[in-house]
Amino acid sequence: MTNKWEDNIRKVTPYVPGEQPQGTGIIKLNTNENPYPPSPGVYETFQELDVTRFALYPDPSATELVRGLETYYGLEEGQVFVGVGSDDVLSLAFLTFFNSDKPILFPDVTYSFYPVWADVYRIPYECPALDEDFRIRAEDYKKENGGIVIANPNAPTSLGMKRSELEEIIRSNPDVIVIIDEAYVDFGGETVLPLLDTYENLLVVRTYSKSRSLAGMRIGFAMGNRRLIQAMTDVKESINSYTMTTASIRIGAASLRDEDYFQERLKQVVATRKWTKAELEKRGFEVLDSRTNFLFAKKPGVSGQEIFEKLRREKIFVRHFNGERIKDYLRITVGTDEQMISLFDALDKIL
Amino acid sequence: MTNKWEDNIRKVTPYVPGEQPQGTGIIKLNTNENPYPPSPGVYETFQELDVTRFALYPDPSATELVRGLETYYGLEEGQVFVGVGSDDVLSLAFLTFFNSDKPILFPDVTYSFYPVWADVYRIPYECPALDEDFRIRAEDYKKENGGIVIANPNAPTSLGMKRSELEEIIRSNPDVIVIIDEAYVDFGGETVLPLLDTYENLLVVRTYSKSRSLAGMRIGFAMGNRRLIQAMTDVKESINSYTMTTASIRIGAASLRDEDYFQERLKQVVATRKWTKAELEKRGFEVLDSRTNFLFAKKPGVSGQEIFEKLRREKIFVRHFNGERIKDYLRITVGTDEQMISLFDALDKIL
Repeated sequence: MTNKWEDNIRKVTPYVPGEQPQGTGIIKLNTNENPYPPSPGVYETFQELDVTRFALYPDPSATELVRGLETYYGLEEGQVFVGVGSDDVLSLAFLTFFNSDKPILFPDVTYSFYPVWADVYRIPYECPALDEDFRIRAEDYKKENGGIVIANPNAPTSLGMKRSELEEIIRSNPDVIVIIDEAYVDFGGETVLPLLDTYENLLVVRTYSKSRSLAGMRIGFAMGNRRLIQAMTDVKESINSYTMTTASIRIGAASLRDEDYFQERLKQVVATRKWTKAELEKRGFEVLDSRTNFLFAKKPGVSGQEIFEKLRREKIFVRHFNGERIKDYLRITVGTDEQMISLFDALDKIL
Repeated sequence: MTNKWEDNIRKVTPYVPGEQPQGTGIIKLNTNENPYPPSPGVYETFQELDVTRFALYPDPSATELVRGLETYYGLEEGQVFVGVGSDDVLSLAFLTFFNSDKPILFPDVTYSFYPVWADVYRIPYECPALDEDFRIRAEDYKKENGGIVIANPNAPTSLGMKRSELEEIIRSNPDVIVIIDEAYVDFGGETVLPLLDTYENLLVVRTYSKSRSLAGMRIGFAMGNRRLIQAMTDVKESINSYTMTTASIRIGAASLRDEDYFQERLKQVVATRKWTKAELEKRGFEVLDSRTNFLFAKKPGVSGQEIFEKLRREKIFVRHFNGERIKDYLRITVGTDEQMISLFDALDKIL
């Protein structure tokens, strides 16, 4: 049975997130979460939260969190926008800045939410191909366009781009907004933050979900000049005045105050990544040079789908994508050393 | 200085929420929050939350909360959609269902976010006028349209509509989605929930921010048939896979389990509302027949703006709107008896 109201329903092809299996004994290496807990200050602040205050609306400007981020990154007041994870922030940036008839540009292999946002907001787009080594070529982003979004480091490839290459893209496109999605940059990417003062068309987006171990509390943010942040705020205030819960505002701010813990955990992830890469290579895997908290790897002669499914039976969840260029690869989150040992045990059993 | 990228920024006129003053000694009767704390089970569940799990993404389907609501309202699986407050839910419903060239309809005096969402998503709209008594006339909603949204009880008027009148509107518009925004219904409105089985074009939206004392944790929800809920879910999954924090999912579900506490607090608000209305009338105010947790009142001969400003100087915040038809009125949240006594003391001083 079809109804006339069906005609007016927005047609979309939703993003498919990695599974969130809820059972026990599962090793979850499929959505690039951090294997370490949030910082001690997060626990403390959480315990101190006054549940009685939850009856009131949160601060719509999330002032404590926003000011905390501005201070942490040495920015001025009005240069930070916060949202419900970086997906909320990126989606809102698409809606705010990409209102041109010209196509926006992003790589053919990148975060698979970009084409979904473009579709839902009816933004035309083109996808320059990565080169043979899965690298983004700056020269592909010098044609006419309505905006650019680049993940650096890129996902799922894990590869980083040099700041100078990104600067070339930003400088060549003064008439459009260039979004650099730095979701994974804390794990070893080269940030473009120092370019914020020079290029007013630059927006940098980050998340608490990876490096800050707070995926469950949904905190993402954008940094840019005041005009861009104000434009995003205006659009956000046209959709939902209060997006950040009182709890997320408070513990997001608390996380910024534990710098030593943060740096230590990052180092640990990077060390485990290095060791995991070597172990995978010992087992005949080709592994890209990761600047993230995951590894992008393939085993020549064995299909990615096959390894993915066999690992799944061992209760080890990694990510597999069906895209033509990447279907042989697996995206494996860097977990704890113990989790990686379980991965290797399973791989040795399977292969 | 203007830049070419300015041309592509989405032009909006944001919603202006009520102030969220952060000082002490303030009596906040301006954003219709509940003066009572969340239920005992909310406190308990909050204390039991495992901060370590915040490192993981939340359940993207918010299963515990969704199933809890389905059970609470006697619905089937797949009939509830949850979001970051009812603003998130309503905004998403506009984006999902209102994709017609025909104008959507909502009253000229109602929740002032409706025209803002229509504008941001470029949905044409028309606003039939309330009658002289600020009532919605069902017959105004029988013309050709691309969808309908009606707040019942309506804000800021506080007036409720009969279910039979709303049914007339829903039945007369089988080709479009009719959204009934029941943000305030728990305080004495007549819900259209019993009509869900009969009309597949009906979507009912509610919030935890008013009756459940959880504005700070951002929980809203929609109820409808599975096809409508699936359509909203698809659009949501095209914007942000994980909107609800782990904490909000857990305490939202907990709130539903304290039914006695919930009913008791509702009764208390209704009792204070009745008494407050009488006290205002004693002081020469005209007060509409509220079915909500606020009162819409004017004092003939004194401007709403004037009383608003004078109360503000006494640190009592109420809401005043500039719309031509309602500029003489104040919207006063029903607080605790103590808060209302402070309001009367201030009014007696001012007037």
